[in-house]
Amino acid sequence: MSIVVQKYGGTSVADPERISRVADRIVATRRAGNDVVVVVSAMGHTTDELIELAHAVNPDPPGREMDMLLTAGERISMALMAMAIQARGVEAVSFTGSQAGILTDASHGSAKIQEIRGTRVTDALQAGKVVIVAGFQGVDPQGKEVTTLGRGGSDATAVALAAALKASVCEIYTDVDGVFTADPRIVGNARKLDEISFEEMLELAASGAGVLMSRSVEFGRRFNIPIHVRSSFNDNPGTWVKEQTMEQAIISGVAHDRSEAKVTVRHVPDRPGVAASLFTPLAEADIDVDMIVQNVSSDGHTDISFTVAKDAADRARAIAEKVAAELEAGEVDVDEGIAKVSLVGAGMKSHPGVAAKVFQALAAAGINVEMISTSTIRISCVIREDRVEEAVRVLHDAFELGEVPA
Amino acid sequence: MSIVVQKYGGTSVADPERISRVADRIVATRRAGNDVVVVVSAMGHTTDELIELAHAVNPDPPGREMDMLLTAGERISMALMAMAIQARGVEAVSFTGSQAGILTDASHGSAKIQEIRGTRVTDALQAGKVVIVAGFQGVDPQGKEVTTLGRGGSDATAVALAAALKASVCEIYTDVDGVFTADPRIVGNARKLDEISFEEMLELAASGAGVLMSRSVEFGRRFNIPIHVRSSFNDNPGTWVKEQTMEQAIISGVAHDRSEAKVTVRHVPDRPGVAASLFTPLAEADIDVDMIVQNVSSDGHTDISFTVAKDAADRARAIAEKVAAELEAGEVDVDEGIAKVSLVGAGMKSHPGVAAKVFQALAAAGINVEMISTSTIRISCVIREDRVEEAVRVLHDAFELGEVPA
Repeated sequence: MSIVVQKYGGTSVADPERISRVADRIVATRRAGNDVVVVVSAMGHTTDELIELAHAVNPDPPGREMDMLLTAGERISMALMAMAIQARGVEAVSFTGSQAGILTDASHGSAKIQEIRGTRVTDALQAGKVVIVAGFQGVDPQGKEVTTLGRGGSDATAVALAAALKASVCEIYTDVDGVFTADPRIVGNARKLDEISFEEMLELAASGAGVLMSRSVEFGRRFNIPIHVRSSFNDNPGTWVKEQTMEQAIISGVAHDRSEAKVTVRHVPDRPGVAASLFTPLAEADIDVDMIVQNVSSDGHTDISFTVAKDAADRARAIAEKVAAELEAGEVDVDEGIAKVSLVGAGMKSHPGVAAKVFQALAAAGINVEMISTSTIRISCVIREDRVEEAVRVLHDAFELGEVPA
Repeated sequence: MSIVVQKYGGTSVADPERISRVADRIVATRRAGNDVVVVVSAMGHTTDELIELAHAVNPDPPGREMDMLLTAGERISMALMAMAIQARGVEAVSFTGSQAGILTDASHGSAKIQEIRGTRVTDALQAGKVVIVAGFQGVDPQGKEVTTLGRGGSDATAVALAAALKASVCEIYTDVDGVFTADPRIVGNARKLDEISFEEMLELAASGAGVLMSRSVEFGRRFNIPIHVRSSFNDNPGTWVKEQTMEQAIISGVAHDRSEAKVTVRHVPDRPGVAASLFTPLAEADIDVDMIVQNVSSDGHTDISFTVAKDAADRARAIAEKVAAELEAGEVDVDEGIAKVSLVGAGMKSHPGVAAKVFQALAAAGINVEMISTSTIRISCVIREDRVEEAVRVLHDAFELGEVPA
């Protein structure tokens, strides 16, 4: 029998009615002859509510207790899901991350999955049961301390379980129909993609497409597990994320991201080791730096700009100012009024004119490009935040990504 | 250093503000030089809300998943309590029932504590930490399946932990000031008892006094752990439940219970084995029978009456009717309009006139007694439910249990 892993997010299990609807779908998958493993997130806004409670009793809650607290969320949804399935006459059993053998490192709040020892899961499958596993959580290798995986953790649980169980597919159920050529709330004729490669999906996720997190796509790619992103509210096929895609479009989509700020260090002496002296302390402070741009040198000095998450901007500024003083560089500016627009497509590799076309389209709309960064399959531009929706539409049109009117 | 175990019920930890207030009390106990172990229930009505969710997805939720679900409640309150204590500069760590080594049998929903292997608790105490333990929950001896202890489970957790840790006292914090001579909502001048023996407290608890459950008193008696029942809303001393009491009052208090129904099997052939044939199948169906009364025989037949919890009355009737048919007995009546009033006091043993005084007092008020049952330190009467408050007041007055006016 083939194993299907299904993951349902918080909106899909937000109340008893939705849980019951999802249970119907799971039971149908089981009755179609599959072994089914289901990963669930916490119901609706449970996690946010628990975080709020924590901050009400402690402004800086310790990570270990925070993980104890938050793991209650999936415990509730997994037990309810198992009950709902049993109410339909199908055997089911729920397991915590710990019981499912999801071993992680000990970093509370942002643990990484190290290994899955899934004997309880496989035993239960062999006994004919549907297995429900709590997403987002694991246990340290000693099996003593509960951990959580951080953002996108439930997707990561699902894809990692699919890999460990050699599942035929990992279905990620969400509140949208799949991966789109652009955010449909911004671009009216955005088109749902039938399939997309892991590589492109990784670039889209890193560029702000919220539907899948990079870490789960990375798992899928590493273990070659096809991921089917689809809606839990209808039966439409969604988007398949997989190794090889049949149709190799030049461009897959346009993503945008308003969550970053730009930090610029002015008048930095242009000598070896300068970049290291800036980015090493940022890395040590656990600040993720996205784009880095260094202008050509003039008079032996240069400007270095980089982008970080807005909520890390103040810490980044403090570190940059300290380094700037040591290097005898100039001022440090933080600009929160920026956004990033990115064009992603595997076909870009063999079509050298893409970058030029991006710049022309933005220029024709009068949108100034402040930073540029490229990979072999992505072009990202930092622009003013108030122009970002226009930029998405301009690029979506320029590359004719939309639905062709019937 | 002496170990103090404190237990806080759902109302005491109902919201972040109350949790913070309780944390102040715990920190004060710690700073007074005690090792402190705290047992918490789920916040406010969390358990009821989770039960409601379960019934919304499955009218008959399986016990194993129900335990998975309900144990999320104490997980939330224990983590928040540990955070609140740490916010006050005192180290604290929370443990689930499983982590605290509370091993139970495998009866989901009504597990019995078998053993406490508290090495994580004692290690944490030795490291100077306040230890928070989830009440109401444990794990089966294989450490694989989570269990809950049923009604009064958090008190049982606290007293059992106090016994295992050889604590100097187990403090049960609740929303009333202690154990009273009668329910203060019914008897205006009911008096708080300063102390009461385990034996009397057991009889009061079994007779409907809700403040402590029999199982925790039983633990206290078996391991001789003094239990201090007191309010979490003020600093007043409460009621000490212990082995020997200084003042030996004749009567400790009046309890009442409206939760039972009376089942009567009429015209039962009066021959050996008849009672066994009725009460064996009831026990096998897990129905707790409280009082049993059999009238004297006339014409070789008798009536047998017994009381059971109202919510078990329908099942009890079905079993009794089946047995009655086999025995060729008469009809089975179920009467839900009854209540039980009980007088409890260790001094009763040496004062033979107590029973007579009870019947006189009730008779003088025109209250008819339908069933009587006695132990060496308790007299219980079944009466009409609509007379129960009056009966409590009548007995409270007859034995002069109230506050003496200043």
